Amino acid sequence: MDQTAFTIGFSVMSLASLAIYAKGSKTAPSLHHTLLHAAVPFIAATAYLAMAFGIGTLIKIDGSATYLARYVDWTFTTPILLSSLVLLAFHERGKTGEVGGYLTAIIVLDVLMIVTGLISSLAATPVIRWVWFLWSCVAFLGVLYLLWGPLRALAVERGHALGQAYTKNVAFLTVVWFLYPIVFLVGPEGLKVITDPSSVWAILVMDIIAKVIYAFYAASNLEKALHEHERRS
Amino acid sequence: MDQTAFTIGFSVMSLASLAIYAKGSKTAPSLHHTLLHAAVPFIAATAYLAMAFGIGTLIKIDGSATYLARYVDWTFTTPILLSSLVLLAFHERGKTGEVGGYLTAIIVLDVLMIVTGLISSLAATPVIRWVWFLWSCVAFLGVLYLLWGPLRALAVERGHALGQAYTKNVAFLTVVWFLYPIVFLVGPEGLKVITDPSSVWAILVMDIIAKVIYAFYAASNLEKALHEHERRS
Amino acid sequence: MDQTAFTIGFSVMSLASLAIYAKGSKTAPSLHHTLLHAAVPFIAATAYLAMAFGIGTLIKIDGSATYLARYVDWTFTTPILLSSLVLLAFHERGKTGEVGGYLTAIIVLDVLMIVTGLISSLAATPVIRWVWFLWSCVAFLGVLYLLWGPLRALAVERGHALGQAYTKNVAFLTVVWFLYPIVFLVGPEGLKVITDPSSVWAILVMDIIAKVIYAFYAASNLEKALHEHERRS
Repeated sequence: MDQTAFTIGFSVMSLASLAIYAKGSKTAPSLHHTLLHAAVPFIAATAYLAMAFGIGTLIKIDGSATYLARYVDWTFTTPILLSSLVLLAFHERGKTGEVGGYLTAIIVLDVLMIVTGLISSLAATPVIRWVWFLWSCVAFLGVLYLLWGPLRALAVERGHALGQAYTKNVAFLTVVWFLYPIVFLVGPEGLKVITDPSSVWAILVMDIIAKVIYAFYAASNLEKALHEHERRS
Repeated sequence: MDQTAFTIGFSVMSLASLAIYAKGSKTAPSLHHTLLHAAVPFIAATAYLAMAFGIGTLIKIDGSATYLARYVDWTFTTPILLSSLVLLAFHERGKTGEVGGYLTAIIVLDVLMIVTGLISSLAATPVIRWVWFLWSCVAFLGVLYLLWGPLRALAVERGHALGQAYTKNVAFLTVVWFLYPIVFLVGPEGLKVITDPSSVWAILVMDIIAKVIYAFYAASNLEKALHEHERRS
Repeated sequence: MDQTAFTIGFSVMSLASLAIYAKGSKTAPSLHHTLLHAAVPFIAATAYLAMAFGIGTLIKIDGSATYLARYVDWTFTTPILLSSLVLLAFHERGKTGEVGGYLTAIIVLDVLMIVTGLISSLAATPVIRWVWFLWSCVAFLGVLYLLWGPLRALAVERGHALGQAYTKNVAFLTVVWFLYPIVFLVGPEGLKVITDPSSVWAILVMDIIAKVIYAFYAASNLEKALHEHERRS
């Protein structure tokens, strides 16, 4: 049942937000990492609470559902996850302008990826659905280009340890994020190969991996890299 | 009459925006304080203008009104007020990452507090109303924790004078902000103890205290602290 | 036909986004300029794609159309264009607080200018239409005051070359931006002197000037200034 999945989502995300803050480093230079990654599941918990109450849930003419709460959640959580990576790539060195430039560019692409995905989900005709799905994929490719191209080059410049931590984190996020358009594609908003409950449970698992497990994985990579970075310099 | 209150709100807020800018310091390190606090009542003036024209005013089935303009106003003004406190806590020292981490965490909690309050106000059943009111209070507690816990510790580290200014400002804001959920609780969106006009007038007074009087109070505390801070160092 | 204009808009904007990134400087201190100015037409391309499909297009009682996609586009692209000017005015020197103060103040005024313009466009009565058009103009004057007053003073302080580049860029933007309220005023949302297709084509030309031609013009002024700035210092 969707209701069970939403209640589990709310519980896991709210506890995870507390756990990430409680366990995370409270001192510079990794404090901001803790704060950003604790904020993410708090937003997700609120979105799952909304879905549990049916708030923002639209039933379309073909009977499939669009959960607006998800798209609002992703509009704010994915930029926060990307910000954490951008800050890691610059690690304590970027000037306001440079960091702001990359943050703006990657957040613009990312938010357009989400918003165009929502338009695709709400589309009344197949043409609209697939044109907007494609445009959403173009924005996703833009995000991946910035992450794996110029930002990775910056991270590697900061030293071997930091470059490696950055690459591990981006690799993890890239793999998980690739699953979202695939589930969308085969789900009730796309080719209808899998049902609404299957897609709800699949996204629940993906959300927990991308927001909770990733937070701990990324923090551990960062701490290890900072340790080595300081030892060498 | 509500109309009178809204017109007064528009007039006071637009004049206050000009006055805060005209009277405020135009040089670093308190210039940003002036700019942030002048922006706040300009947003509020626009919201009061909208309410005066009934734009975004929803009349619900039970006859009570939800003023969407208020929630939009608060979604942008409260993060600005919090940003000003975060910048004071760091006073000229925080790196982009650290300041950004605290800003993101506190703004996420704050905006969720507002949005969940709006959902509570629009709720069709008592269960939804009270669950979302509670979740809004949880977010509010998160904001207060960050303000009184780690951010206050940072401010105190910056020296006695700055720590004291920060504490005074946070204390003022905490007291005023506590009144909002109380008025919501007893007002037409909650227990209906007070009527719509009473709640409109009460919020007008609170808005003027939280946005205008606070701006002058906070600026005077900041200037005094900077004066002492420089004298000692 | 509107459809042709929207398709041209989409094509020009998406190619321009690629071209601005491909041709732009990839190294500090002008890298952020490239990233910000490439993000702008990507947003505009998405808005034109939406208009081509009629997404967010509202036909009002008097038969005139309001293109919501435009207002969403402007809500994000105009703050990015202003951010680029604010960063130029501070050129590598502003502290987080100062830069953040100016960015917040100018973006608040700018976004309120757009949102109040939208309310004016959707207004049911002439009184609402003109009051909100006027309030939008007040916000526009606030933006111009900050650009030509305190921010220009900051840019000039950074040296002759940078001051000149800043002034040229602001002058260009001021002239183009002045055309928007004029087209609104005489267009179908205002005095109905020109028809919907004329206004669509006029705005297409203005959008290309303000987002694409401006990006190349501003980059060339910036590069020239940086060259001279470094030669002298």
